[in-house]
Amino acid sequence: MTNSYSIGIDIGGTNTDIGLVRADGCVVARNTLPTGKYYVADLYVADICDKIRELMAEMHVDKIEGIGVAAPMGNYYTGCIDNATNLNFRGITDLNALMHSHIDVPVVVSNDANASAYGELIYGGAKQMSNFITFTLGTGVGSGIVIGGKLLHGKTGNAGELGHAILIPGGRLCGCGRKGCLETYASATGIRRTALELMEKRPEYNGMLRDVPVDVLRSKHVGDAANAGDELALEVFAMTGNWLGIAMANAVAFSSPEAIFLMGGPVHAGEVLLKPLRESFNKHLCFVYDNSVDIRVSELPDNDVAILGAAALVHLAS
Amino acid sequence: MTNSYSIGIDIGGTNTDIGLVRADGCVVARNTLPTGKYYVADLYVADICDKIRELMAEMHVDKIEGIGVAAPMGNYYTGCIDNATNLNFRGITDLNALMHSHIDVPVVVSNDANASAYGELIYGGAKQMSNFITFTLGTGVGSGIVIGGKLLHGKTGNAGELGHAILIPGGRLCGCGRKGCLETYASATGIRRTALELMEKRPEYNGMLRDVPVDVLRSKHVGDAANAGDELALEVFAMTGNWLGIAMANAVAFSSPEAIFLMGGPVHAGEVLLKPLRESFNKHLCFVYDNSVDIRVSELPDNDVAILGAAALVHLAS
Repeated sequence: MTNSYSIGIDIGGTNTDIGLVRADGCVVARNTLPTGKYYVADLYVADICDKIRELMAEMHVDKIEGIGVAAPMGNYYTGCIDNATNLNFRGITDLNALMHSHIDVPVVVSNDANASAYGELIYGGAKQMSNFITFTLGTGVGSGIVIGGKLLHGKTGNAGELGHAILIPGGRLCGCGRKGCLETYASATGIRRTALELMEKRPEYNGMLRDVPVDVLRSKHVGDAANAGDELALEVFAMTGNWLGIAMANAVAFSSPEAIFLMGGPVHAGEVLLKPLRESFNKHLCFVYDNSVDIRVSELPDNDVAILGAAALVHLAS
Repeated sequence: MTNSYSIGIDIGGTNTDIGLVRADGCVVARNTLPTGKYYVADLYVADICDKIRELMAEMHVDKIEGIGVAAPMGNYYTGCIDNATNLNFRGITDLNALMHSHIDVPVVVSNDANASAYGELIYGGAKQMSNFITFTLGTGVGSGIVIGGKLLHGKTGNAGELGHAILIPGGRLCGCGRKGCLETYASATGIRRTALELMEKRPEYNGMLRDVPVDVLRSKHVGDAANAGDELALEVFAMTGNWLGIAMANAVAFSSPEAIFLMGGPVHAGEVLLKPLRESFNKHLCFVYDNSVDIRVSELPDNDVAILGAAALVHLAS
């Protein structure tokens, strides 16, 4: 089956990445479209399908198993994108129907966090697992939940929005309009926010992060500073790890998974995040789950994870 | 199939209730053993099996589909009770094996909260549902999670311990040794605690709850006072409803259920709890789940819920 192929499409607000993926998880060819330039969904999908044909011709592949699409607000049940705020074509876009007017293979749509979990299951470190959770730290915090070997969609298709579970009641204001959501603390954006808060509280701090203009400061700077031994940056990651550890312990009390996988930019900071995270997780985990959960970093390469997750969705159709 | 029968056994620290349950959810006969008087598991189980035979003879039932046991720390995977702190026979009690040495029918063991969820599925208001959650408010807060029509057990068999999800990081000390667990706020014990805290903060309060000696005060008194219009008691339930609403909104962000069922003593306080609970739930629910979740009170009669939940477990075996 290593000569069977799927297409993975990762729709972002800026770019749409399209990859031809071999069954062993190798992205053999890829292309990109500028999502932001499209205001009409029909044209956008037609161009995606042209790119798919180009990739197939380029690699002399004449048959694909299906197309998986990871999209903001992508709905597994309907195959539509529902009112995504960062795309120019508003309302409900029936991706499944539009794709089928060009290419006659199964099309599976979901959101990016769910796709990442499925990528880990089909191509990554969760291959033998039937019960695990992924947390993706990015602009927000995405999560995907696999139970009984299947991605959990729930009644609405939006199960697994752990970034919007409330960690601190009455806490930081979230983009969703509520307060205290996990993603206001543990996302890349949350890390930046924690750093800025601490820097404001510590006027005497004169370390590396003061050299970065406030509007430029990102979680990457905080990670680099922490790894260079900057005390304030280390404190930021200690706080982030503590918050994330509580959220992960709470997730375990729900589904008692075999493992939790972490992915996304801030995870590359490494032990400055992972050490306090594990300590917090162990401290906050209810004793009935002691030693039952493996905390792991995703095994999928950063560059491929979005396309692989999307391509993995094709396996949901079979 | 209304002439098919199961046995439901609810093991509590004080009493063990045994019921003969008809397929339509009618408990046709029941009996009780004093759990606390047994220090040897073999004798305890032998006496339970004698009682089962008595019930069957009494009702002229010569065949049962199986035996369901709801026990503290009951483990679905092993059929054992694992180190329950409120039973005299410590360590691991292999209920499944002990039962089978007396009666040759399927035996299914789980904990009481999981059993309640299954009771709601088989005999109660969740009959047509495949995805729902139950919260049982008692000494602690128990929960059971059904996904895809099946009870969620997870890797350890202990999935669905939402009473031990941390609601307020660093909050009230819990019996499990951690801080801020939901059950320290939303259980019957938590309600008592909230009332005592408020009464201490309000020395000027001179209402109904002052007439109840502190060591006698229970959530039932608070419920009665709230329903009689006592302002402090109403405030206690407003706080309890607020906390429980957040926890329920967080649970929805996990599995996106069709419904959440509430059961247990404090729920009988009625609207003084349910109104602030619904308000908090709607306020704290992430917008993607708006209007997708039905908040309901269990339809199972209080007197039968434990036996029905246990008997329902038999359907897990088939």
